[in-house]
Amino acid sequence: MFKLYYVPGTCALASHIALAEAGAPYTTVKLDFKANQQNSPEYLAINPKGRVPSLVTDRGVLTETPAMLAFIAQSFPQAKLAPLDDAFEFAKVQAFNSYLCSTVHVAHAHKGRGYRWATEESTFADMKRMVPKTMGANFALIERDMLKGPWVMGQQYTVCDAYLFTLSGWLEGDSVDLATLPKVADHRKRMSERPAVQKVMAEQ
Amino acid sequence: MFKLYYVPGTCALASHIALAEAGAPYTTVKLDFKANQQNSPEYLAINPKGRVPSLVTDRGVLTETPAMLAFIAQSFPQAKLAPLDDAFEFAKVQAFNSYLCSTVHVAHAHKGRGYRWATEESTFADMKRMVPKTMGANFALIERDMLKGPWVMGQQYTVCDAYLFTLSGWLEGDSVDLATLPKVADHRKRMSERPAVQKVMAEQ
Ligand SMILES: N[C@@H](CCC(=O)N[C@@H](CS)C(=O)NCC(=O)O)C(=O)O
Ligand SMILES: N[C@@H](CCC(=O)N[C@@H](CS)C(=O)NCC(=O)O)C(=O)O
Repeated sequence: MFKLYYVPGTCALASHIALAEAGAPYTTVKLDFKANQQNSPEYLAINPKGRVPSLVTDRGVLTETPAMLAFIAQSFPQAKLAPLDDAFEFAKVQAFNSYLCSTVHVAHAHKGRGYRWATEESTFADMKRMVPKTMGANFALIERDMLKGPWVMGQQYTVCDAYLFTLSGWLEGDSVDLATLPKVADHRKRMSERPAVQKVMAEQ
Repeated sequence: MFKLYYVPGTCALASHIALAEAGAPYTTVKLDFKANQQNSPEYLAINPKGRVPSLVTDRGVLTETPAMLAFIAQSFPQAKLAPLDDAFEFAKVQAFNSYLCSTVHVAHAHKGRGYRWATEESTFADMKRMVPKTMGANFALIERDMLKGPWVMGQQYTVCDAYLFTLSGWLEGDSVDLATLPKVADHRKRMSERPAVQKVMAEQ
């Protein structure tokens, strides 16, 4: 049995969808950022980084979305959520997830979490102004080079799709026009029709 | 045969060390940031993100340090650079690498690459001022919770060690005092004694 700590609307959605797609047995614990629960002593004992998601397993706690996604795919091979038997194709999945984690997610975080990297109000405003541009450029690259279609990796649905759906859900709030990204928009639509995604959206 | 595109002193060092530790057949191509070679049309055709590292393989190009490290470990299982037969332990390796990629590397990048996320000179100065603090806090967490010793994952040397060595090499330039991080300092020393590391440092 897995236990997923999450906050609605965050990157934790990707792991939540992956658990549902895998048919994994799991429960969830919803944290509240407004109450700063991610920095409570209880939660820091689970994840000292003070972030979601965290996945509690029988063996211990896992953090970091790309690691959790690969772990879920490997733990439920029958769900075929990653090309597990081909190291090169698996690396392509991982490279996509690493780009979302280290570049796209980070670009987005400069809108509301500027205090991670700076102290001045003028800096936060400067960072915020640039988010539509950085998120727009990152997603233009995804649209052009990375999203093969119909799924990220082509014919096979993988954990990359859950992750992309999670981050593309931030585009409207980041003032990036989905109409300029037809493949991403189409991907969002196709994702919304999947039963596992509908189940998770209802749960969150 | 693999071909690694790198720039000395960058995160590409981690993959370079991993290739050497794996005993992989590889050649290297050194790029020059001063000449902006990472954004030349020739290089953008290899890696449209305009970053190093990139690894050219017989099957295509791989990017993103955590993906490349896992790929090298999986491609050369006899080198035992990751716990490949245990999905949970493998996920621990990946979580460590993802933290370095998405949080530690990104904290460091705010010193010299602020223009990725903002436009004003005052913002760049604000970001620069905070780097010793963010890198210090990230490495304090690594020291306290992540680096088991003697290697990151404990007794087994893994690709995590090559990655940690790469990023801990930035601490001095980021004004973080290694004396406050005795386990990290000890790890750097132990890494420097490895033949593969010495070979790569000489190559770079
Ligand atoms: N690299 C981590 C990042 C996790 C992360 O930053 N999560 C955000 C939500 S999307 C968070 O917990 N923020 C809370 C805070 O910054 O206090 C991952 O990909 O899992
Ligand atoms: N997420 C990528 C980041 C790669 C990256 O940012 N590399 C830096 C060097 S450490 C780079 O190429 N910078 C050149 C530039 O920004 O123009 C990874 O971990 O491989």
